[in-house]
Amino acid sequence: MTERNETTIAIDAMGGDHGPKVTIAGAALALERRPDTRFMLFGDETAMREALADYPALQAASSLHHCEVSVRMEDKPSQALRQGRHKSSMWRAIDAVKTGEADVAVSAGNTGALMAMAKFCLRTMAEIERPAIAAIWPTLRGQSIVLDVGATIGADAQQLIDFSMMGGAMARVLFGLERPTVGLLNIGVEEVKGQDEIREAGRLLKETPIERIDYHGFVEGDDLGKGTVDVVVTEGFTGNIALKTAEGTAKQIAAYLKAAMTRTWLAKLGYILAKSAFDRLRDKMDPRKVNGGVFLGLNGIVIKSHGGTDAEGFAAAIDLADAMARHDLMNKIAADLESFHRRLSAETKDQSESTQT
Amino acid sequence: MTERNETTIAIDAMGGDHGPKVTIAGAALALERRPDTRFMLFGDETAMREALADYPALQAASSLHHCEVSVRMEDKPSQALRQGRHKSSMWRAIDAVKTGEADVAVSAGNTGALMAMAKFCLRTMAEIERPAIAAIWPTLRGQSIVLDVGATIGADAQQLIDFSMMGGAMARVLFGLERPTVGLLNIGVEEVKGQDEIREAGRLLKETPIERIDYHGFVEGDDLGKGTVDVVVTEGFTGNIALKTAEGTAKQIAAYLKAAMTRTWLAKLGYILAKSAFDRLRDKMDPRKVNGGVFLGLNGIVIKSHGGTDAEGFAAAIDLADAMARHDLMNKIAADLESFHRRLSAETKDQSESTQT
Repeated sequence: MTERNETTIAIDAMGGDHGPKVTIAGAALALERRPDTRFMLFGDETAMREALADYPALQAASSLHHCEVSVRMEDKPSQALRQGRHKSSMWRAIDAVKTGEADVAVSAGNTGALMAMAKFCLRTMAEIERPAIAAIWPTLRGQSIVLDVGATIGADAQQLIDFSMMGGAMARVLFGLERPTVGLLNIGVEEVKGQDEIREAGRLLKETPIERIDYHGFVEGDDLGKGTVDVVVTEGFTGNIALKTAEGTAKQIAAYLKAAMTRTWLAKLGYILAKSAFDRLRDKMDPRKVNGGVFLGLNGIVIKSHGGTDAEGFAAAIDLADAMARHDLMNKIAADLESFHRRLSAETKDQSESTQT
Repeated sequence: MTERNETTIAIDAMGGDHGPKVTIAGAALALERRPDTRFMLFGDETAMREALADYPALQAASSLHHCEVSVRMEDKPSQALRQGRHKSSMWRAIDAVKTGEADVAVSAGNTGALMAMAKFCLRTMAEIERPAIAAIWPTLRGQSIVLDVGATIGADAQQLIDFSMMGGAMARVLFGLERPTVGLLNIGVEEVKGQDEIREAGRLLKETPIERIDYHGFVEGDDLGKGTVDVVVTEGFTGNIALKTAEGTAKQIAAYLKAAMTRTWLAKLGYILAKSAFDRLRDKMDPRKVNGGVFLGLNGIVIKSHGGTDAEGFAAAIDLADAMARHDLMNKIAADLESFHRRLSAETKDQSESTQT
């Protein structure tokens, strides 16, 4: 796989619940892991300098870009655009991707505002109608990619196919797979099940196979945790509900486990003996490890980190951003889309010619 | 709360992956818990008699009804209706509710066929456009009711309101609450979020409050596990995906936990010491304990058990059926609907009169 040697990552230092304290500490962690990374930090200069004081290596690897405006976590997308276009740390981090100064932008700011700004600044790709947010989902097999987890509500068949291609490209980059398996999320695996759009997308994916993905068919909610396929495709409403339901269930079971393990002396003793096992489990379930939603379908890659994450979690979002940039996700998606649409128009031409004879 | 002293439960003895062996053993367990229950058992007489041999008490409390046809787990709804109407064990169990011989029917047969037969035989209630399947969801607060988890795809605002009323009535019966809290499942809690139908339903529930429910507003996927509200309302596609996603996540974490606890000697020892705690946890997460989807909105109550469950799980579905019948769920739903529609038409009349003056 081709790899770029150096990446420049634009950071919205003011995003998230904790601002520069977390974003800059997270960037410092990410830099330790890949010392050839360069950062562009956008935000209030005083606050950034203060947070940078502890990290001389990061300071040396970064350029600082003062911004007067910070988008707040509670700002509505329209409000954020009105007040923050061209001048907020969020906008300028995204804009650095547009101008080519940075390879990718990372923000822990609010999702609605970030998507609105990213769409406005980067625009959707020529062949794509709607962007999607892709999440990394821990599974029994390892990890899968699930999209859309909340960029827009609803998707028609063509949009679901676009999501399949974009998710497939991301799986190739992230998991190093030649031809990732892709499933459409549905309420049954039979062809007659589900909404019209999903059945239509399934039919099209069968009839016009996409070179770089291996279409598996429909999958159900419990296939997410099993890791039945590498990429699960759904529209944003269902995807968002599924993601939050899984997060909620994991928290619920962790709470049950904690209550059970502290109820009796014997259980407490057992817990102490098995502590390394519990640590392993906690590690597996750690939401910080899979932090980062990838905005796909725009002319540039933007990564959304959880707003409430800590430095470790923000570093994970930067790791993800770095992987997307190093392996050139953008061009892979563009190439896949182009080849698909070329093949599609060739087929349409074939058909119209055969109709004429 | 008014309670009936005796219930008669119609059992589709042939339904499920294991047939009479499990359904009859399950009924025997349920009878031990409530010796005043009466059963009508529908199925192949030879197979039922064989399974009954070990349970003389159940035999004494049951009437047997021989049926030549059994609906298979893989039958399509249309196929099941064609081959099994009037004569299959599934149909006849439902029909016993229609004729009033039984108070409620229980089947572990396939969901699609059961819903098709239940709709065809019992018909939807006068005020209800579409039935729903309600599931019981274990939460950090105890239990909630979630509907629809897969009866039909999509729901308009009025249908979501119907679901709210039916789920509310079920929560009153099952949890003994005066005025259960109800939330609409959405991808954000702000009023501007989500599909039109959900926003419209939310607006109507605010403007025309329903006497017997306490409308909470929108809830998100992670509120399911938290137990933020007593009743979570959604359309069947999203509800089904959420339910299966939660089940899949629970299984995934159980697998992680098992792997962690058997990896080292110390962990194994810790596991042995904390065994009672793990048993408690397993008990909490036991899907058999909350087995049973309740079909609401039909002129009679039908309970769907998991097809693959064992006797303990099937007994839990019978327990649920019994509770619904003893506390007269049907009449509670009917009364709520009537009072709501009377109030609605009175308001419409008021409005048209005030328009005329």
